[in-house]
Amino acid sequence: MTLRDEIFEQPERLASLLASQRDAVHEIARVIQAQGVQYVFLAARGTSDNAGRYANYLWGAQNGLPIALATPSLFTYYQHPPRLKGALVVGISQSGKSPDIVSVLSEGRRQGCLTLAITNAPDSPLAQAADLHLDIQAGPERAVAATKTYSAELMALAMLSAALADSHTLWEELARVPDWAEQALRLDDELARMAQRYRYMRQCVVLGRGYNYATAFEWALKLKELTYTIAEPYSSADFLHGPIAMIEAGFPVMAVAPRGAVYASMLEVLTRLHGEQGAELVIISDAAEALALAQSPVPLPPEVPEWLSPLISILPAQLFTFHLTQVKGLDTERPRSITKVTETH
Amino acid sequence: MTLRDEIFEQPERLASLLASQRDAVHEIARVIQAQGVQYVFLAARGTSDNAGRYANYLWGAQNGLPIALATPSLFTYYQHPPRLKGALVVGISQSGKSPDIVSVLSEGRRQGCLTLAITNAPDSPLAQAADLHLDIQAGPERAVAATKTYSAELMALAMLSAALADSHTLWEELARVPDWAEQALRLDDELARMAQRYRYMRQCVVLGRGYNYATAFEWALKLKELTYTIAEPYSSADFLHGPIAMIEAGFPVMAVAPRGAVYASMLEVLTRLHGEQGAELVIISDAAEALALAQSPVPLPPEVPEWLSPLISILPAQLFTFHLTQVKGLDTERPRSITKVTETH
Repeated sequence: MTLRDEIFEQPERLASLLASQRDAVHEIARVIQAQGVQYVFLAARGTSDNAGRYANYLWGAQNGLPIALATPSLFTYYQHPPRLKGALVVGISQSGKSPDIVSVLSEGRRQGCLTLAITNAPDSPLAQAADLHLDIQAGPERAVAATKTYSAELMALAMLSAALADSHTLWEELARVPDWAEQALRLDDELARMAQRYRYMRQCVVLGRGYNYATAFEWALKLKELTYTIAEPYSSADFLHGPIAMIEAGFPVMAVAPRGAVYASMLEVLTRLHGEQGAELVIISDAAEALALAQSPVPLPPEVPEWLSPLISILPAQLFTFHLTQVKGLDTERPRSITKVTETH
Repeated sequence: MTLRDEIFEQPERLASLLASQRDAVHEIARVIQAQGVQYVFLAARGTSDNAGRYANYLWGAQNGLPIALATPSLFTYYQHPPRLKGALVVGISQSGKSPDIVSVLSEGRRQGCLTLAITNAPDSPLAQAADLHLDIQAGPERAVAATKTYSAELMALAMLSAALADSHTLWEELARVPDWAEQALRLDDELARMAQRYRYMRQCVVLGRGYNYATAFEWALKLKELTYTIAEPYSSADFLHGPIAMIEAGFPVMAVAPRGAVYASMLEVLTRLHGEQGAELVIISDAAEALALAQSPVPLPPEVPEWLSPLISILPAQLFTFHLTQVKGLDTERPRSITKVTETH
């Protein structure tokens, strides 16, 4: 199994996760609701932290749950961990092995909080440390750069959101994700051609907002891991508070701007970058107006609701990065300096 | 008043804030304790968001308070803001004008939460939207890049932590901050010489962990705003989960690594960057072993306790950035593309 195989495996894995874990997810939602949690305290690193960024918006907007993204070193290096009363403590990790994430869940449990592990490894220390375990069932991931476990983590978080909202409509929309994912992956040839243009790109900025803040972070992480590009992710709002000063004519900006609540604010920033700042734009969107601003437009399938757009928009971003890695003559299977499981404390 | 004047004004401003607001801070702490908050929901942007990162560690480690860093767009673009029951809702903003930060506080108040504004503008919309207001009294800040309002925000957060902990020792340590700040600013000439070496630096990474995660973010933001360097901040732990792949021989890495709970983990990463990866290191530290790894060592005054180190370590970072701006022939007073008050929604 190569990175490319794992990217293309996603529609099938998402369909199977949706079918096999629906009952488990409903049961987890029932326990969470019975507990009456006030907020979520969520610990994750790397790609899984980007899935946490999705939960931050999704569970906030759709389930009314505020989310605190944990700073694990508070649990491993400082003497007194915070008091977590009222919190649902969640850990997300593909391998379930990073000791700092396990520490956060163990402490949550010690303090009497309800704890939930979302992993690809039912026998992992993280799964064992938690009251509840949601298995993302992505199958073994061999490539160092995570792809199918990211989309499976998003799917698991989205299923939990639908179960907590107890909404038939949301489950109907979820059922269409595998089809939309298939459609998005059909951009493969186009993205292979498009990546040529970025052969000598050394740095870029990646913008996203709201639900797709997560997509911007995950795309930037893939670009860093696989192509060694200095790719810095921002919400379009934070970007205006200073970092926009870096942008000169021709500076490459990747953007994830599907239609939805934050589309107008993204379009405003992209219009400014296209016009007065003369940036080079790679734009993933289902809106013609945004795509028209880009040197490299990446069209998304239509009709994807905003809350599910991160599950679809990451796919062309993964493919773009895969092709760019090849265009640059780099090894997609053995990126330098990193390993599959990083154990931080 | 220029940027340089504002940097050098800091010891005096910090001393005066400490003297004039101590009673107000104790009263705010009393109200917070009477309310029995379960966690803090904190909204900020740009430099103030970096102050929020300091609060995240400080209030977590020293006061047992978990902190959720707000995603303001949940309040301005999405229909249903999260349920904030049990939260102390805090907004930090120099100008007190950014509409999205005001929205978060207004919603907190509407839901019956206790709200606190930390600003440099007692008459601002943010101060008016809050139950409690802490005035950081930094005086008018003219330079577009914030310096003295950042250290004043940190001081306000540190004073609140000392008051919540009701600790005489912490207040005694706070009283020494202005002296330590004076000492740190004496590195001016050395930093002016040091900055020469980075005349052609186009990108870098900035590392910090624990309390100084905030310093890494704020240093990176100044580098972006003033020198247009692509400067990406990381915790040393997140850095190992992927981004370290970007580092090739000679790649510049700025690091903030004072002694304290996370020093050993920072030293481990810096040793790896120095050795097998051959990175170029600019290191701010009070530890000889860390400084010895750097091409450009920046010694901090000794004896600064870790919890207060971000108030001191940011000062040479500001000076380094100021001198680099001059070395590159850029305008420290009128950085391109940004304005003093950025109003995001």
